[in-house]
Amino acid sequence: MELLKKTVEKIGDLHRDKMAEAQERLDNLLKPPGSLGKLENIALQLTGITGNLRNTINKKCIIVMAGDNGIVNEGVTSFPKDVSLLVAETMVSGISGVAVLARHAGAELKVVDLGIDGDIKAEGIINRKIRKSTSSFLNGPAMSREEAIKAIETGIEITESAINEGADLIGTGEVGIGNTSTSSAVLYAFTGADLDTIVGRGAGLTDEALERKKDVIRQGVSFNKPDPSDPVDVLSKVGGFDIAGLTGVYLAAAAARVPVVIDGFISGVAAVAASKLAPGAVNFMFASHISVEPGVVKIGEILGLSPMLDMNMRLGEGTGCALAFNIIEAAVKVMNEMGTFADIGM
Amino acid sequence: MELLKKTVEKIGDLHRDKMAEAQERLDNLLKPPGSLGKLENIALQLTGITGNLRNTINKKCIIVMAGDNGIVNEGVTSFPKDVSLLVAETMVSGISGVAVLARHAGAELKVVDLGIDGDIKAEGIINRKIRKSTSSFLNGPAMSREEAIKAIETGIEITESAINEGADLIGTGEVGIGNTSTSSAVLYAFTGADLDTIVGRGAGLTDEALERKKDVIRQGVSFNKPDPSDPVDVLSKVGGFDIAGLTGVYLAAAAARVPVVIDGFISGVAAVAASKLAPGAVNFMFASHISVEPGVVKIGEILGLSPMLDMNMRLGEGTGCALAFNIIEAAVKVMNEMGTFADIGM
Repeated sequence: MELLKKTVEKIGDLHRDKMAEAQERLDNLLKPPGSLGKLENIALQLTGITGNLRNTINKKCIIVMAGDNGIVNEGVTSFPKDVSLLVAETMVSGISGVAVLARHAGAELKVVDLGIDGDIKAEGIINRKIRKSTSSFLNGPAMSREEAIKAIETGIEITESAINEGADLIGTGEVGIGNTSTSSAVLYAFTGADLDTIVGRGAGLTDEALERKKDVIRQGVSFNKPDPSDPVDVLSKVGGFDIAGLTGVYLAAAAARVPVVIDGFISGVAAVAASKLAPGAVNFMFASHISVEPGVVKIGEILGLSPMLDMNMRLGEGTGCALAFNIIEAAVKVMNEMGTFADIGM
Repeated sequence: MELLKKTVEKIGDLHRDKMAEAQERLDNLLKPPGSLGKLENIALQLTGITGNLRNTINKKCIIVMAGDNGIVNEGVTSFPKDVSLLVAETMVSGISGVAVLARHAGAELKVVDLGIDGDIKAEGIINRKIRKSTSSFLNGPAMSREEAIKAIETGIEITESAINEGADLIGTGEVGIGNTSTSSAVLYAFTGADLDTIVGRGAGLTDEALERKKDVIRQGVSFNKPDPSDPVDVLSKVGGFDIAGLTGVYLAAAAARVPVVIDGFISGVAAVAASKLAPGAVNFMFASHISVEPGVVKIGEILGLSPMLDMNMRLGEGTGCALAFNIIEAAVKVMNEMGTFADIGM
């Protein structure tokens, strides 16, 4: 709990004075003011984060948190648990979606096992296993409060080490069969929103299975009564190791003043949890893409972030972050390389 | 007219048989079917275009058509005509928005003067001037039918030479003060749509100026009576050299079976004109971003294309294409580099 507490306390405000300078430069660039839209917003936010008018991105890293979910036992998914391990292994062997897209983006990929329900044999997966799978949250908590804190603090430690290795742009990803169910449950616990607006088909549920998924989430939250004012309580009772781990990633990035990119639904729910622990963490986040899961709309509302990409994607893994990295780098170059009206004597 | 006719006749269908093979491979990749959304659609369409399951992008080129518009004399813009020449010059000097983003994307930039209202002194702008500015279309045609054909055929020639130089991914851009007015007029002539849905604020009009812009477009179309079944008539009467030139770019790319990316509103209107001349040309097009100009929604409906990016951009120049190039390259790598379920023994 000490590391979590210290990390939250370390999160500061944006450099507002520098942002005013950055806005002035953006308005003087050779274009109608605001006409580069979100590229300008991104450049401005980067200045607020780093305090520099001109930034560089030297090392990109996507941190993938992997863990299995006991709720899979209740029939809420279209794939069995074993698939989590297989997918994690394809990430380090370089043939999964995020592996290919991270390579395309020139980003490092760190895959962290927080709770895969099996023994990982592949080289390259960082072993920080807390337990083999959480428990089903239908009639009891997914994990203990101590385990949730451990998962968050592991996320903090992994992120701190990535930043120590030079990462100045962080992406978030996850693998874990059942994690759209846990994510919807966490979002439901925080917001009480209509389940139709925050529960989706995950990897491809039928109509019937979707109704089952909603029932399980409703029952699990009703039984566990997570306290929405206590994010650790919510994460431990109806969350997953991956969501808790990613919560730590956001907090550590914000504390170190490093920009961090949200992927899709699951990683977005972790961003919400991080914002509940430290509202100022949102200032360091960027939304990459609007995924097919319905809950991303609610997440956008809560965080006040608007995604860059509209790709109908729903794979997760961090794939949206990999695509967003190139756009963030483009925003950096707009700020650094575009001429001003003064440059051409106007 | 001979070159235009030949080019239209040369446009073939997609390789449908190869697309079925590509779809099969996409469905076997390590992910739930369809979960990479538009990345999969892009990969599929590329196979349809080239006939290859696995593609490579070796040389990217953005073709920017520049021309002034007589309609500017009617007070429909927030910038004077001189700005077109200045912007074109900043493109070749490397400090305009598209210059920076094309460099970021590793793309060549070809800037073509079809009708800038001034004498270009900068090196590097391709001089294919037809006339210094079109005429105002308020009480007469913007240009003659011959001039419109010349602009289209110049677009074809420039694109053919880019492709001969090795370009295998083409982007479209434009510069020309007043070209959201000409674009809205062309779209209005083709569709008769409610002007509120297809006329926007361009580089930043006031409410009053926006109403004036709509009046001018309504009057100009009413006076000239362009024939919606004759795209050359529409382009010549209420279009611009840039729109006509880009129409040629789309046709030439389609005829040579090279993928071509639509930027924003103006380049989208040219895509509509190309599709009216050759409906099959749409199969070779990709939509990059949803710009702020309201008419892009109508264009998406007509072409049946859905953009990848949602960036609130409205600069034009080809900036959206530069960002989309990276995504198209990502789609290529998904197809080429992701593993299949068979690869991991499933």
